[in-house]
Amino acid sequence: MSTPISKSPSTRGPIDHNVRTQIVEAADQHFSHYGYEKTTVSDLAKSIGFSKAYIYKFFDSKQAIGEAICANCLSSIITDVSEKISHSPTASVKLRNLFKYLVESCVKLFFQDRKLYEIAAFAASEKWPSTIVYEEQIKQLLTTIILEGRESGEFERKTPIDDTVNSIFLVMSPFKNPLLLQYNLDIAEDAPPLLSALILRSLSP
Amino acid sequence: MSTPISKSPSTRGPIDHNVRTQIVEAADQHFSHYGYEKTTVSDLAKSIGFSKAYIYKFFDSKQAIGEAICANCLSSIITDVSEKISHSPTASVKLRNLFKYLVESCVKLFFQDRKLYEIAAFAASEKWPSTIVYEEQIKQLLTTIILEGRESGEFERKTPIDDTVNSIFLVMSPFKNPLLLQYNLDIAEDAPPLLSALILRSLSP
Repeated sequence: MSTPISKSPSTRGPIDHNVRTQIVEAADQHFSHYGYEKTTVSDLAKSIGFSKAYIYKFFDSKQAIGEAICANCLSSIITDVSEKISHSPTASVKLRNLFKYLVESCVKLFFQDRKLYEIAAFAASEKWPSTIVYEEQIKQLLTTIILEGRESGEFERKTPIDDTVNSIFLVMSPFKNPLLLQYNLDIAEDAPPLLSALILRSLSP
Repeated sequence: MSTPISKSPSTRGPIDHNVRTQIVEAADQHFSHYGYEKTTVSDLAKSIGFSKAYIYKFFDSKQAIGEAICANCLSSIITDVSEKISHSPTASVKLRNLFKYLVESCVKLFFQDRKLYEIAAFAASEKWPSTIVYEEQIKQLLTTIILEGRESGEFERKTPIDDTVNSIFLVMSPFKNPLLLQYNLDIAEDAPPLLSALILRSLSP
């Protein structure tokens, strides 16, 4: 069966939420065992018990399924971290906690529980749309915290906000991108507090 | 021929500087073409025109030759960067230049001219002694600059010097370790000035 080529992988066919979720969950399990890159849609269909044609009614390629898994995974990191920092009393504490919980969440999701590393790494190296959304969401969280701290007088206001956000984002990058995080696992606990302290010194008014 | 096992690869036999240099240079060329991991000492001996036994008089393993190449390469980065920053007028300028020239040197040596990436990456992942020396030398350069800036009143003096040095070292790490730098090549020019500005804000008295 030939697959239609689409530049940006997308979903299609009847929007049947349950079947889509079922395929994504089964694929997630299957990829965890057999790896993302080595699996074909045929393998997946066989393992789930659906026909290949039926899967193609919901996802136009293996990447579209991978994208859905990756988007779920990254969005759960953002939800988890946002919830955790929402109770922090000040912008400084929020920033420390953002870094701490972001790294914890990434280590857990990419390297422990769900063995999502391969898809996440593939997504990061191919710059899938879900990874771009993820990076924008982290920048958005950072911007909100910086503005809050500038408002409350905790942080300096001279540096252009974009420079502040982008430079802090760069400091955090090796710990939230799975491709880089794999080499930083041994310092994933000690580095964030040291780096947060440096960032906070850089923000002092 | 069986090779004696030594935990830390070392040189041995008569110290004949010329022959050692000749072997290292030839091996460097050979690895550039055929890769470090795939090459055996037999391949190397054949390619250089020496007997394997003769090579073993100077180096006790392939890794010892790789170490010598890697040590040369990393030491040339440190020499190059030290020379370049020695003329910078202030500690702040030295720090900016240290970051800038370190990244430039690494990009050039690991990814352009000499295709040393494979050996450097292998060395970094296996934590060869030469990479530990290299990291210590960067920390030493950083310490000297920070102390100079504290002395001249450019930098704050409240933070323990080790915290200051270690956190700045962490910020620079993704750009001086070949394993991480491979994923940062597209930002290798723009990131250092942004990060240097953040570091300098963090150092302000």
